Amino acid sequence: MRNLLLTIGFVGTNFVGWQVQENGISVMEKMQDAIEAVTGVRSPVKGCSRTDSGVHANAYCLSVKTESPIPIGKLPMALNQHLPEDIAVFTCEEKPLDFHARYDCIGKEYLYKIHCSPVRDPFQKNRVLEYSKELDEKLMQEAARFLVGKHDFKSFCSIRTDQLDTTRTLYWVTVERKENVLFIKIAGDGFLFNMVRIITGTLLWVGKGKLNPSDLPLILEAQDRTLAGMTAAAKGLYLNRVFYFPEEVMELGENPKF
Amino acid sequence: MRNLLLTIGFVGTNFVGWQVQENGISVMEKMQDAIEAVTGVRSPVKGCSRTDSGVHANAYCLSVKTESPIPIGKLPMALNQHLPEDIAVFTCEEKPLDFHARYDCIGKEYLYKIHCSPVRDPFQKNRVLEYSKELDEKLMQEAARFLVGKHDFKSFCSIRTDQLDTTRTLYWVTVERKENVLFIKIAGDGFLFNMVRIITGTLLWVGKGKLNPSDLPLILEAQDRTLAGMTAAAKGLYLNRVFYFPEEVMELGENPKF
Repeated sequence: MRNLLLTIGFVGTNFVGWQVQENGISVMEKMQDAIEAVTGVRSPVKGCSRTDSGVHANAYCLSVKTESPIPIGKLPMALNQHLPEDIAVFTCEEKPLDFHARYDCIGKEYLYKIHCSPVRDPFQKNRVLEYSKELDEKLMQEAARFLVGKHDFKSFCSIRTDQLDTTRTLYWVTVERKENVLFIKIAGDGFLFNMVRIITGTLLWVGKGKLNPSDLPLILEAQDRTLAGMTAAAKGLYLNRVFYFPEEVMELGENPKF
Repeated sequence: MRNLLLTIGFVGTNFVGWQVQENGISVMEKMQDAIEAVTGVRSPVKGCSRTDSGVHANAYCLSVKTESPIPIGKLPMALNQHLPEDIAVFTCEEKPLDFHARYDCIGKEYLYKIHCSPVRDPFQKNRVLEYSKELDEKLMQEAARFLVGKHDFKSFCSIRTDQLDTTRTLYWVTVERKENVLFIKIAGDGFLFNMVRIITGTLLWVGKGKLNPSDLPLILEAQDRTLAGMTAAAKGLYLNRVFYFPEEVMELGENPKF
């Protein structure tokens, strides 16, 4: 028996998210189908996290135990032949038998893309939030700094949750512009339901002047969802990186706040 | 009456091409629908060229005459509200009444994208040719040079055509690599049926060693389609630029061959 860690990417538009749901096709079932087709056995897979319907992944990790003797170097291409074209397996590595893609994950980085232009980009349909006006990314950067570190993020959590512990640590929150696209990167040790989308919606309100950067500490403190911004659309969100080692976080973050 | 030149972009995957066809939805009819919705009149539109089913456009030009008083600055956003999200109007400018998007066009640039990787990119589904092995772009560049200038391109024209004059002038043919994507750019005064896709397929055969760069002059001279490479898939092809002034060609081309 081997325990394999797969890193995949997917365009989320046609899926209900990672986890199996009754109302549509999930990435997880497509992965299980492909693994069964290649190994001959339907094996339970462990994903690194849930994802919302329509959310994309530049990198998503899952672990699966298999007795198949197929070399790990050949597994990505073999699996890709059995996957729809909007999912791809990038890499495969062997891990200790007690490794679990979710429980051993020490953090993740999400990316949110906002296309700021009066004219939409047809090639980014379902892949960005289209915003027809300008956003002040300097103000957004200022606001973002208040969120880094260990905080109670209850104000940034959907009320449709029964999560009791709403304290999380964000390693970094950055806002960068490349031409007319804003890239918001949010890394942390864990995320509440809709947390990245609500943080993005709040930063967007700062960028358009509806909130001030200095409102952020007050919103955090109030622990009240109604004070934060709207939940930004799923289609602009990407799971960007999954961390299993502190060194990965150290390397990427400029002085990350553990 | 005003004569307007619109520059649009579209993801070609869901269309049968620019021109109206019986077997699917065309970009032209979507444009006519949107113009009718905004101006109240169904007006004939003149496209700069035909495009194959599944081919994309980073820039496609069309002209339309209208008596509508709507300011040209407002037209792109007004039209975009009536277009599917995989088409967008970028700009609108007024032209003399005798201007025609096709007859006044002095050239076009096409772009072809080949993703060279054993693992496909799910975000480029239907937007690149996936090629699982390496291609030698130095050899492809060498071969490309033989095509620049005025030649009879009969060997690079689909036999499914009744075109009598198969002489065209190519301004430039370049092959560039960015990470694992090859970008082939082909600009010229006009293009035969499938010409860009056959040139691309031939360069691809050079890149994989099935043809030599020095075969190119012989293939041109033979005027025989069977000697050139395969017709590369439509999904990797983009109409990239449309030229109405020699200065535009001069600016972009490094010593373009008129």
